[in-house]
Amino acid sequence: MVPIDYQTLLSETVATVRPLCGSGKVADYIPALAQVPSDRLGMALATCDGALYTAGDAEVPFSIQSISKMFTLMLAMEQVGDKLWERVGLEPSGNPFNSLVQLEWEHGIPRNPFINAGALVISDHLVTANQDPKAAICALVRDLSGNAAIDFDPVVAASEAEYGYTNYALANYLKAHDNLVNDVEDVLDVYFHQCALTMSCTDLARAGLVLASRGHLPGANAPRLAHAYAKRITALMMTCGLYDAVGNFAYHVGLPAKSGVGGGILAVLPGDYSVAVWSPALDPSGNSSAGGAALEYLTERTGCSIF
Amino acid sequence: MVPIDYQTLLSETVATVRPLCGSGKVADYIPALAQVPSDRLGMALATCDGALYTAGDAEVPFSIQSISKMFTLMLAMEQVGDKLWERVGLEPSGNPFNSLVQLEWEHGIPRNPFINAGALVISDHLVTANQDPKAAICALVRDLSGNAAIDFDPVVAASEAEYGYTNYALANYLKAHDNLVNDVEDVLDVYFHQCALTMSCTDLARAGLVLASRGHLPGANAPRLAHAYAKRITALMMTCGLYDAVGNFAYHVGLPAKSGVGGGILAVLPGDYSVAVWSPALDPSGNSSAGGAALEYLTERTGCSIF
Amino acid sequence: MVPIDYQTLLSETVATVRPLCGSGKVADYIPALAQVPSDRLGMALATCDGALYTAGDAEVPFSIQSISKMFTLMLAMEQVGDKLWERVGLEPSGNPFNSLVQLEWEHGIPRNPFINAGALVISDHLVTANQDPKAAICALVRDLSGNAAIDFDPVVAASEAEYGYTNYALANYLKAHDNLVNDVEDVLDVYFHQCALTMSCTDLARAGLVLASRGHLPGANAPRLAHAYAKRITALMMTCGLYDAVGNFAYHVGLPAKSGVGGGILAVLPGDYSVAVWSPALDPSGNSSAGGAALEYLTERTGCSIF
Amino acid sequence: MVPIDYQTLLSETVATVRPLCGSGKVADYIPALAQVPSDRLGMALATCDGALYTAGDAEVPFSIQSISKMFTLMLAMEQVGDKLWERVGLEPSGNPFNSLVQLEWEHGIPRNPFINAGALVISDHLVTANQDPKAAICALVRDLSGNAAIDFDPVVAASEAEYGYTNYALANYLKAHDNLVNDVEDVLDVYFHQCALTMSCTDLARAGLVLASRGHLPGANAPRLAHAYAKRITALMMTCGLYDAVGNFAYHVGLPAKSGVGGGILAVLPGDYSVAVWSPALDPSGNSSAGGAALEYLTERTGCSIF
Repeated sequence: MVPIDYQTLLSETVATVRPLCGSGKVADYIPALAQVPSDRLGMALATCDGALYTAGDAEVPFSIQSISKMFTLMLAMEQVGDKLWERVGLEPSGNPFNSLVQLEWEHGIPRNPFINAGALVISDHLVTANQDPKAAICALVRDLSGNAAIDFDPVVAASEAEYGYTNYALANYLKAHDNLVNDVEDVLDVYFHQCALTMSCTDLARAGLVLASRGHLPGANAPRLAHAYAKRITALMMTCGLYDAVGNFAYHVGLPAKSGVGGGILAVLPGDYSVAVWSPALDPSGNSSAGGAALEYLTERTGCSIF
Repeated sequence: MVPIDYQTLLSETVATVRPLCGSGKVADYIPALAQVPSDRLGMALATCDGALYTAGDAEVPFSIQSISKMFTLMLAMEQVGDKLWERVGLEPSGNPFNSLVQLEWEHGIPRNPFINAGALVISDHLVTANQDPKAAICALVRDLSGNAAIDFDPVVAASEAEYGYTNYALANYLKAHDNLVNDVEDVLDVYFHQCALTMSCTDLARAGLVLASRGHLPGANAPRLAHAYAKRITALMMTCGLYDAVGNFAYHVGLPAKSGVGGGILAVLPGDYSVAVWSPALDPSGNSSAGGAALEYLTERTGCSIF
Repeated sequence: MVPIDYQTLLSETVATVRPLCGSGKVADYIPALAQVPSDRLGMALATCDGALYTAGDAEVPFSIQSISKMFTLMLAMEQVGDKLWERVGLEPSGNPFNSLVQLEWEHGIPRNPFINAGALVISDHLVTANQDPKAAICALVRDLSGNAAIDFDPVVAASEAEYGYTNYALANYLKAHDNLVNDVEDVLDVYFHQCALTMSCTDLARAGLVLASRGHLPGANAPRLAHAYAKRITALMMTCGLYDAVGNFAYHVGLPAKSGVGGGILAVLPGDYSVAVWSPALDPSGNSSAGGAALEYLTERTGCSIF
Repeated sequence: MVPIDYQTLLSETVATVRPLCGSGKVADYIPALAQVPSDRLGMALATCDGALYTAGDAEVPFSIQSISKMFTLMLAMEQVGDKLWERVGLEPSGNPFNSLVQLEWEHGIPRNPFINAGALVISDHLVTANQDPKAAICALVRDLSGNAAIDFDPVVAASEAEYGYTNYALANYLKAHDNLVNDVEDVLDVYFHQCALTMSCTDLARAGLVLASRGHLPGANAPRLAHAYAKRITALMMTCGLYDAVGNFAYHVGLPAKSGVGGGILAVLPGDYSVAVWSPALDPSGNSSAGGAALEYLTERTGCSIF
């Protein structure tokens, strides 16, 4: 099989989907996000044999928002193990990411760690397990991406807290059901900060390589993450990573992925590559319009998806 | 990489999970299913290079039940194309397979083709598109599995109709929302028959090869199914194929699959193989207990899943 | 206290609300109802001391639809007694009258006898308890209203059956949950016929007097209905009689009542009178627009409601 | 008609239902309530001609909890008028009093002012309309009951705040839907205090007389409350005043009423009397077991209810 020329492919992809930039609506629930120009488009792809390819605004840092849920889950799995699943489920929710309905029906057990309620339970575990949970999260993403400059955006974090009434509602409801060990404020502080992590496509593609390489990073002597954990996080991305559009994304793209309302999507083709794309305008499901199109183009052109 | 000795692996798998046979409850909503001995266990694996491996009761025919939804979807995609998705969705439901709740909330549009309401819409399409829809379904599975003896079990079909009040409710509700073109009775007749298809693990493994081989069967000159359709059906199996346990199965097994309450599960590793397993006792989600364990063992031992 | 001149009041009420006739939408889910002229308006009031007052189209027979649920409940209470409440609840539903959602959540036990699912359970009781349940219903309303000519409209009954998919769905779902003893078709036949009873405002006002007089009809030697039953049916009308507008009607009118999508409303002021009003155009909740306004005018002008 | 000897009747009622004291479970979601002895039983009845009758622990103050929602609604109706209904509904909810489900479905508009979410919207109105909303509430109940010593129990109020996670969730969710004008903390402070009002049966019976007398207190020259408001609050008590047991209470008792988890119930027979009963052990719906039985006994013995 002829090796794929990823650099050409990325440039072509970015050129092809650029007209979609600005199609949709930039997240505006907090002022800090609403100001991001909607014509931004970046893409980076890191292969399991160690190469990196980029196109467009691949180096521009943006707010990763819910993509952080993948990193906090990874940290919690390593720190807590399978006990994690006593307080959060593994199934797609069939409801919006910030819904309180299912939480009530299922007596305070969130359906999965990628809806907000589930991510709050993960944050609660991190508050329990770490002296400084925010520092631990930062350390993980810096390490995985090899970029020590990654940090929280304090303006975004403050904005999340100021307008975070729905998350306050979710956290208090979890507490009412004894599914939050720590103080509501402490858990939310971690949560609002993780959402405010600022990373570029290049950072994300590199950080995702631990999953694409099934835990064993290229060139490393030892696994960075147990294969079983890498497999399981990837499985969760497949079934729960794209808000209400999980099935649509699997159908059209066919890669496990995690999206954020900042317009980023991180996807992996296990055994091959990790790819990050960013464009701020969102489709009605809250996923980057141009980003989704770019990933669909990529898998169609290569003829490679997990299916 | 050393090639996998599938025959040894299958024998080992069957031996390992046999103690789980009978763990759970054989489906008893119709008498015909309740009589199946719970100690049965069979497995068959067909590889994309044309080999077939079997173990246990691999040749014993059983009621494939909801696995048929995969075949009727395949037929409808070929006959109707993307118009299909105007009347049925692509997303996991987060509700039981026979639930009326989401159908009401979403005004008669079922969430996906693998819950009962969605499968009824697919059946309705087949009634419209085929002079004899039951014969068309039969012809497809006979052709894919290379077994001209496959047929409906008339006792099971009659039993499905006799006790099928929930499906009558779903069909009438779809009709009330103008999402059923044909007569309720005609659509249900097709549906009750497809559930009553009788196939063995070997039949199913062979029939699933069209998906594992991405549409192009081993040794064939031309594709049997468009690659895009194969990819999309496989994606739907991944996100919607295991009732309420989609996430759990993805997490522990990591293969796209479709299960039935007859105790069968058909799974594929695209590019590699199609595998069918059968054991009648079900876990609380309605999936074969021993069957799920067998597939988990298989992917753990080979270290190969789609993730 | 000066006695109320009901004749003048009724004429005044009809004149006042006549401009509202045709405001809203005549029920059109079956052709037979859609043809009723929307400018009809009638009113009849029967007092506990035996007088009858009428205005407008009080003598015109119309399809009483869900008002029949009050009569079938009365019959079933007399025939079955308190065992009735083992299979149907007493509480307002907070959901539309034909919803399947709550039925699913509450495992086939309808919230109250005035939503469709609950009325179907009542019909099932009547099928069990009567050789000819339709004749028994007819006999009751003829007796209570003193009009032996009251009958089912066969065109409406046939139309209800032809377009009754939602009711077929509800009946089958009840059957699936073992909350229907008799055949689905037999129960629905009774239900579709009771909805097709044709009565005038005068008929209804007279028939409602048994509730207004707390079971003991004016001039009779013995109670026609146990006081306890009259009280309880009236209580159910108060909390469940007006579809989704129970609270609104209690707030603005303040009388126990039962409405139907034919445009009729039957209300009672216990100890004083029974009043029926009819005008076919419905508000968004499915209650007669002019009818509701007429009853509000009546209670405001008399200063008398149950509150 | 022979006048009713209310004093004898009350004594008899208390004697009859005393065996039910302690049947059920004293509210224990906050420590302050859990300590109340379950064998307490009191009753007071105030007639529209100015008499007062008492039995048992009628003078013992207790935590009125949700009965306060009737008083805050009265205050808000007088201060805000019909604009109130733009932000809260009038219909029974069909869901538990502290449910978040319906709030989500109906985009932040609570179904009625007697579920917690609705009462929070009323509290928000009171924060807007009053310099010192807590003092205004206190002034109202002191004035209506003629007891200047009525006050908030600071221990109960603090306990409500400490364990009030579900109410924090509801308030934050209302805020997220722009249905709370003031700060979450300010609104909750009012709400937690109103729940902590301490009154006796005698206080409550006297305070309820304004509704029983349709706004015009016995012996007064002018109405204390507009008749229309009295009627409407009473109608809301009828359709929404008893948590999930509205229909059951209407069926068995037949009086408009408001209950609280402190074990109190305040009911009125418009035109006749206001009656308060207290016994701390609750039935599964959260209403006083002995209290409900006492009111059923009262209406059965007198043969008088609103129906």
